[in-house]
Amino acid sequence: MNLEVHPAVQPVAFLLGTWRGTGNGDYPTIEPFTYEETVTFEHFGKPFVAYTQRTKGADGGPLHTETGYIRMTEDGKLELVISQPSGITEIHTGTRDNSRLEFTSVTVSLSPSAKQVDRVGRVIEVVGDIMTNELMMSAVGEPYQWHLGATLHRT
Amino acid sequence: MNLEVHPAVQPVAFLLGTWRGTGNGDYPTIEPFTYEETVTFEHFGKPFVAYTQRTKGADGGPLHTETGYIRMTEDGKLELVISQPSGITEIHTGTRDNSRLEFTSVTVSLSPSAKQVDRVGRVIEVVGDIMTNELMMSAVGEPYQWHLGATLHRT
Repeated sequence: MNLEVHPAVQPVAFLLGTWRGTGNGDYPTIEPFTYEETVTFEHFGKPFVAYTQRTKGADGGPLHTETGYIRMTEDGKLELVISQPSGITEIHTGTRDNSRLEFTSVTVSLSPSAKQVDRVGRVIEVVGDIMTNELMMSAVGEPYQWHLGATLHRT
Repeated sequence: MNLEVHPAVQPVAFLLGTWRGTGNGDYPTIEPFTYEETVTFEHFGKPFVAYTQRTKGADGGPLHTETGYIRMTEDGKLELVISQPSGITEIHTGTRDNSRLEFTSVTVSLSPSAKQVDRVGRVIEVVGDIMTNELMMSAVGEPYQWHLGATLHRT
């Protein structure tokens, strides 16, 4: 079934598709690292966008993955929910400035065995066929700061 | 890359694959309904299983979808994290009795616009090539009770 994009999704339809590229990460508790990232934003004709991310390390082995949804509320606001196999879920509210989305966590929830994460910020921007995404966080006792950034090309 | 199943995933390797079938739902606040469900459990060679679910209504239109991960902790316990486009995330702890998994929510988190959900229970059981899954919940002021059940066949 070829579903039309829901009207509420139209303002962020620039996200839809599969994006691939490279990123790098750093944090006070780890060594700096680089990765390859594939991100997919899909729609199912409803007022949300499904998000899937997978990264691979320099050796080609699987590194991180996460999935979630950007949800458009009835009053036109943006929310983002994400779950991670590290035992973490995030709930964000967001704002859109043209093709730049900024999300700030309102809730970060942890499974009993997960590492401590207190706050997460995410920025996704598309300019032409290039997507940049960045993640800031405060975790494991460290102050809120930049953790990850990637530059992706539409495939 | 054809990744080997991580040793921690071996006890639940019976989940891996794609399953399809029909389900039905009920709750005091809604009319009973039926749906077609497709569920996929994938592994990436790491100590977790990725879960994707999509349902369609009797008219073939998209109904629900959710994604998440079953995570095996270092001390051999099961955790489950899920995010839903309805603005809900769930974190569960679980137990395994042969090929029957039972999960009970330890945290249900809600986006500002989500409906109230207080507690969720999930049961997944595989017997031969048949998977049954059930969901119980307390939500929108109603007591904890059965909400969804489906019977799926391995595809």
